[in-house]
Amino acid sequence: MNDPILSRIDSPADVKRLNKEELPLLCRELRDVMIETTSKNGGHLASSLGVVELTVALHRIFDSPKDKIVWDVGHQSYAHKLLTGRREQFHTLRQKDGLSGFPKPKESVHDAFVTGHSSTSISAASGMARAKTLKNDPHSTIAVIGDGAFTSGMAYEAINNAARSGDRLIVILNDNKMSISKNESNLAKYLSNIRSTPGYFKMKDDVQAFCQKIPLVGKPLESSLVKMKSAAKTILYGSNFFEDMGFRYLGPVNGHDLDQLCAVLSRAKALGGPVFLHVETQKGKGYSFAEKNPGEFHGTSGFDIRTGKSKSKAGALSFSEVFGRHLTELAKRDEKICAITAAMKYGTGLNFFSKAFKQAGRFFDVGIAEPHAVTFAAGLAAEGMTPVFAVYSSFLQRCYDQVLHDCSIEKQHIVLAIDRAGIVGADGETHNGLFDVAMLLNIPGIVLYSPATFQELRWAMEQALYREDGVCGVRYPRGGQDADLAALTKAQDWQLLGESRKKLIVTYGRISAEAAKAAKELGASVLKLTRIFPIHVDAFALMKEAERILFVEEGIQTGGLGQYVGAKLLEEGYKGQYKLRGVDNCFVPQATPAEATALCRLDSASLIQDYKDYFY
Amino acid sequence: MNDPILSRIDSPADVKRLNKEELPLLCRELRDVMIETTSKNGGHLASSLGVVELTVALHRIFDSPKDKIVWDVGHQSYAHKLLTGRREQFHTLRQKDGLSGFPKPKESVHDAFVTGHSSTSISAASGMARAKTLKNDPHSTIAVIGDGAFTSGMAYEAINNAARSGDRLIVILNDNKMSISKNESNLAKYLSNIRSTPGYFKMKDDVQAFCQKIPLVGKPLESSLVKMKSAAKTILYGSNFFEDMGFRYLGPVNGHDLDQLCAVLSRAKALGGPVFLHVETQKGKGYSFAEKNPGEFHGTSGFDIRTGKSKSKAGALSFSEVFGRHLTELAKRDEKICAITAAMKYGTGLNFFSKAFKQAGRFFDVGIAEPHAVTFAAGLAAEGMTPVFAVYSSFLQRCYDQVLHDCSIEKQHIVLAIDRAGIVGADGETHNGLFDVAMLLNIPGIVLYSPATFQELRWAMEQALYREDGVCGVRYPRGGQDADLAALTKAQDWQLLGESRKKLIVTYGRISAEAAKAAKELGASVLKLTRIFPIHVDAFALMKEAERILFVEEGIQTGGLGQYVGAKLLEEGYKGQYKLRGVDNCFVPQATPAEATALCRLDSASLIQDYKDYFY
Repeated sequence: MNDPILSRIDSPADVKRLNKEELPLLCRELRDVMIETTSKNGGHLASSLGVVELTVALHRIFDSPKDKIVWDVGHQSYAHKLLTGRREQFHTLRQKDGLSGFPKPKESVHDAFVTGHSSTSISAASGMARAKTLKNDPHSTIAVIGDGAFTSGMAYEAINNAARSGDRLIVILNDNKMSISKNESNLAKYLSNIRSTPGYFKMKDDVQAFCQKIPLVGKPLESSLVKMKSAAKTILYGSNFFEDMGFRYLGPVNGHDLDQLCAVLSRAKALGGPVFLHVETQKGKGYSFAEKNPGEFHGTSGFDIRTGKSKSKAGALSFSEVFGRHLTELAKRDEKICAITAAMKYGTGLNFFSKAFKQAGRFFDVGIAEPHAVTFAAGLAAEGMTPVFAVYSSFLQRCYDQVLHDCSIEKQHIVLAIDRAGIVGADGETHNGLFDVAMLLNIPGIVLYSPATFQELRWAMEQALYREDGVCGVRYPRGGQDADLAALTKAQDWQLLGESRKKLIVTYGRISAEAAKAAKELGASVLKLTRIFPIHVDAFALMKEAERILFVEEGIQTGGLGQYVGAKLLEEGYKGQYKLRGVDNCFVPQATPAEATALCRLDSASLIQDYKDYFY
Repeated sequence: MNDPILSRIDSPADVKRLNKEELPLLCRELRDVMIETTSKNGGHLASSLGVVELTVALHRIFDSPKDKIVWDVGHQSYAHKLLTGRREQFHTLRQKDGLSGFPKPKESVHDAFVTGHSSTSISAASGMARAKTLKNDPHSTIAVIGDGAFTSGMAYEAINNAARSGDRLIVILNDNKMSISKNESNLAKYLSNIRSTPGYFKMKDDVQAFCQKIPLVGKPLESSLVKMKSAAKTILYGSNFFEDMGFRYLGPVNGHDLDQLCAVLSRAKALGGPVFLHVETQKGKGYSFAEKNPGEFHGTSGFDIRTGKSKSKAGALSFSEVFGRHLTELAKRDEKICAITAAMKYGTGLNFFSKAFKQAGRFFDVGIAEPHAVTFAAGLAAEGMTPVFAVYSSFLQRCYDQVLHDCSIEKQHIVLAIDRAGIVGADGETHNGLFDVAMLLNIPGIVLYSPATFQELRWAMEQALYREDGVCGVRYPRGGQDADLAALTKAQDWQLLGESRKKLIVTYGRISAEAAKAAKELGASVLKLTRIFPIHVDAFALMKEAERILFVEEGIQTGGLGQYVGAKLLEEGYKGQYKLRGVDNCFVPQATPAEATALCRLDSASLIQDYKDYFY
């Protein structure tokens, strides 16, 4: 390894031992390794590049794992991983059995809390800080949270509670002026106002001098002046909402100036009580292509280091893009259609819709605020619009009650476009879309489609918009379609692929391709559901007459569709054999989608084997 | 009817026709009817008393249903109901087939949106206001939201988005200085600071005069002074966080002064764009007992009007109280135990714990912030504490992802004490606890107990704290225990009540009492589960050998325990009959618990009838 400084760092203690002069070089080496590895493995590069100096400073000033660092979302923790004994494994980032792209307590004692979903860090850190106080443990707990994550209500709930108990909690706002896409919220404007006022340290003396010099001009103004002094303190000392909430506010400081960072972190540590530290960073810092296009390098699937060009196949069509383009076409003919994203305009393919309808006021990026997104959609629907909320399956988990309480009770017609449904691959446990079916099935009146091809997706969207009422979910996988499956299928509620009516593999979604391969080998048919709930009566009638059913589900088994079907069959006196193969009572770790599918025994080879074991 | 003014009000148009002099009398009459009715039927009296003048003023200035009023939570909508054509039915409040205690669009065109859970109004109203803009409809949409509801992240997410599009949205903060219990959050302190600064109208002239008179004292101060002028404007004009978020801020105004209210509402209407109006009200206003004890009269089950004394049986022990007292006892012996509530200290019985351990810093009321509560608990658990989050079943729906992502992945040991599980009665659709089992079952590693007696509850809590690991839910019903059932049962994982092993009614929780009565009549046994998940192998073995099983579930059927059991039995080759009786694909309306149980065909008579229909 060609990293003279980094190669000496096996733990945070080694970071502390470095000379000050060596630190910029360490930062450069950290960046190089991160760029090198993500160029091959893919990953969240831009966020991690932005916090290199902050990470080094944190490990200079604090003493992990006694002091706890909670990385919000966690995709910015690469430098942290490299400095905490995981240098040698870093090349395995995001691979099967390799280092996770997110903090994982199982992976290292330095990963204080599992993250992956946004905006949880202050809640978790305040719990940890409280526990430390209760245990008389004098160490600090630090939450590092981006400005994008601050658009979520959870961060606000935490801020509203965290400072009250006076624990040793430090909240570091990593302000890079954007969430994944450009942050357009009012909060963003508010932070920008704070940024434009001079920092705490610089202003303090000026203001004190100024306030002491204001002359008094007659009696009526005296009391107002007293107020003005306190007002000036409030505004000019850099105080703000966060201070109103009970924190000591420090900042803003330059997040790429190691001296300044170390100084302010020492100060925060010394203050003891709850501190809110505002750090300004540049997303993508230190890699010109990422600096210019931080959005593109937020999550990359690999790139050429010299050109910055993505390695992903150009022109490989994804479900997200098919969704985004088709919705845009439909919305040109139907002015009731509105589209909503929670900070995932590009990921969900809504960039096409945004371009066409933002001016018209029919596109909404609400920030990382899934609960608001759903209830806002319900409000649009209550007044006759047809809102489509495009959201990743695993982030939809944030708004179960909003779907149930705000939409389902009054049968508001909203469409949930559920992207990344099923196994997603390298992002692992926290990002797999394996719970949406079980979560939604229990909601009264719900209708669910699970298209497995582009054609089915387009068709399902039209059904959701024009045939269904109430809450309708259309769930589709990450990536592209299986060409063989696309050639086999028609867009309709359900389809029997094969001749046998005795031996059935019943399934839905992406995994239908594996099922079809297995069925062919087994002389069985695939009963493929596209509208998965409610199940068409004819499809159910077919199941009732079968002799052997293997229900294959790329989703959590308990509470899922296969159990619904199994229990229904039993209630209706089905006398054949029934076996269910889903994801049972576990989380699916990171791996390629193909590897993870095999791990879950959902690949065709496993299905063939298990079918034989069950039924022969 | 003896209400000379109110008896002439059949619609909001009639409110507009009244002379100004008649309005105070109308308010008095509204209060009298509300006090009279809730003294008999129970209900949310204190909140509704607090907004009588505000409601009258809204219907004087705005034109419902063209202008839309969204009542947050909705329990303060009694005066609104009385003024919008529902006077004659008001005596049926909260009864079967009667008026709902919450806004219901099905009930009246004047109920713009269904509410029940807190903090949804700004999201919904901003969606409606946007739709109106898109439709070129010039009417206003008004959200009326309490300061307690503002502790929820959803309200913040909405505020952060709502003002951006410039729609005709008016957010009215009904600031009564408390949520259900005393509001102790930092937000509360912040609002109290705003309240203590003079209002917008009064200050404007003073400040302008003042700013114009400030003399300039030498060059170095000039630029600072420019800043000061703008700072003064920001602070002294009553501007604040809400204005930073893009609203025009008006207030605070006296919420019991009709003239002031009408003036400021007219102003808000005329402003057109997004307005944030801060109104100060007194909870319980106009009924001395409710003014003195607003918490007690938040939700009352009936009282003597002259004495203010509750009619509920003194000394009738509830599951909540048993929980609260037992947890307090356990916590005296185990200093790791912490307890958390989301603004429901009294409702959950945590008042006992609070009294004993608030000083010690082991009790937390986080406001209406269930998502934060769960992740905060996870943080406590990560550092070795044993947090118990006591929450109503229907509000737990707010934090599915937090339980899944922040607790389950790392198997954090937290205990969810799930109160109001099952049918709750008069609060109806929005408050029934019918989804917790289906919502939680799909979470990997979950353990669930559903005690049906006080003894079982105490035992289940001990199991949850000391026998189980990871996320463990203990769910128990509203109200007290069934004495007959208590005499029959022992505290253990499962119990067979009866001799038959061929004819089983399998069930859990409160409804076990009905099942036991039915089983006796049918010559069947009840297989009663107390640890409902995972099911004990012996209990499952018993089911496998049975000939007929009726699975009775006081919860949503799809995704529930009965389907899990049915599918498992079929997978394992069970050849007997199986029928499932749960709440199927619907919401359960308001009624007494006994009436609602019968509506769901879960009462013993229905169970007997259906058992015979299914199996004979």
